[in-house]
Order: sequence, then structure tokens, then C-alpha cells
Amino acid sequence: MQEKEAGMLGRVNHIAIAVPNLAAATASYRDVLGARVSPPQALPEHGVTVVFVELPNTKVELLEPLGEGSPIAAFLEKSPSGGMHHICYEVDDILSARDRLVAGGARVLGDGTPKTGAHGKPVLFLHPKDFFGTLIELEEV
Amino acid sequence: MQEKEAGMLGRVNHIAIAVPNLAAATASYRDVLGARVSPPQALPEHGVTVVFVELPNTKVELLEPLGEGSPIAAFLEKSPSGGMHHICYEVDDILSARDRLVAGGARVLGDGTPKTGAHGKPVLFLHPKDFFGTLIELEEV
Repeated sequence: MQEKEAGMLGRVNHIAIAVPNLAAATASYRDVLGARVSPPQALPEHGVTVVFVELPNTKVELLEPLGEGSPIAAFLEKSPSGGMHHICYEVDDILSARDRLVAGGARVLGDGTPKTGAHGKPVLFLHPKDFFGTLIELEEV
Repeated sequence: MQEKEAGMLGRVNHIAIAVPNLAAATASYRDVLGARVSPPQALPEHGVTVVFVELPNTKVELLEPLGEGSPIAAFLEKSPSGGMHHICYEVDDILSARDRLVAGGARVLGDGTPKTGAHGKPVLFLHPKDFFGTLIELEEV
């Protein structure tokens, strides 16, 4: 059996889906798919308004751009109807995770210093080109 | 508290990621991200070879096309480096879920009859245009 190592991937914290119209997407997930959804939360410092879709084992986050320079604006320009934007994995220690990733040749976005994410915890994003087109967020929990 | 209704979304069973090179992607998830990965499993009847990335609360499935007419071939033609392909949610009763979805105006792919999915269970796919660019699989568990 493989032991858990420092820097290993933990739970899927959330799957983020960018949408052009949060009210319509929320109604779809609630009324058509039959999921539990949170009220919308504006996070101006992150450039998004978010609705949490609560599943029994993880959550989906529906993201709509908020304000100028939203980090999901370019994505929605390319995919105007929306789409899966990133996956967030939990890690125990974000600095050791980062060091392991960089040693493995992966690129961390920005200057490599964890930022405070939308849940108030340290996060990093990894370059999607290093992970087969998937944008990966790591969140220390 | 909201009661669980027939047809409601259950757990995220998996997040599927299409990749052009399964061996390379598996090595990345195992060695760089530090995740547990399964051996590759060829599923010729589904047109994919799959590696399971086991997380504590769900799994990621890395999919590589197998044979002619793979259901992920068109996706990889459009996104040659790969990307998030679909999310699979568990439901208790796939026929009641389907009926609820159709009543809500969602389109089920194919003729609406559940097929046997990659895990040997009944599955349906929903039209991504009805869910903001996200391809959704429902699996009865």
C-alpha cells in the first residue's frame, strides 16, 4: 500500500464551471438537475460571483464574471456558453506541494506565492499546459 | 431542510479528462501531482483506455481514445492537448432522473434509453448546450 506523502493530492474540493448567466445556470442545476444550490455570493476581490452546488461528496462552483478584469472573462470569450473551468484539489501543505510540483517541472501561475483564495485559504494555480489542458487549483485546508 | 427527491443529483462519481497521451498524463498525475493511479484499462466497447486517479472523495478518469470512432476523438481534435471532458453524477434511479430532466426541457443524448457505461452501470449523457457547456453523465448506482 502506498503511503501518503507530503504534497500529495487530497480531496477534490470543487469543480468550477464558468457560466455567462449565473441566475439561469443556478435555476438549471436547482430545478432541472435537482441539486441543492447556495444563494449567489459576490466576491469582488476575486472578480466572480459564485453559487455553490452542494453534492454529497464535493461541490460544483458556478462562476459568473464580476467587474472588470475577471479571471474567467477570457475563458468565456473563448467559450461563450460556458464550460468546465478548473478542478480544485486539497493539499495539507501548499508550500511543500508547490516545491514538489516545481521540482517535477510543473509551472505555478504567478510568482509562486500562494494567494488567498475564494474560501479564504491559501491557493495556487498550475499551468494547464503542464496538465493536459486542465487548469488545476491547489487549496491548503 | 430540503428533502431528497427522486431524480436528484447524488455524488460526483468522476470527473473525466480527455488526454492525447495516457502514459504521459498518468505519469504526471502520479509523479508530479502525487496521486494514486490505477493501471490502464482498455475499454474497446467504449472507445477509450482509462486510468483512474483515486482521490479520497471521488475520482478523476483520464481517457485516451481507443480504436476508430472513439467518443472523445472529436473533443481532442478541437483541444489537442486535452481537457476536462465531462462530469458524472450518481443518481438512484436513472429513469426517474431522465423523466424529470426531459420534463424540465433538457435533452438526453441518443434515444433516451440508458446505455451500459464504462463501470457496467446504466448511464445517460445530457446535452452540453442545456448545461452551459458542461457535458453531464448520469450513472445509476
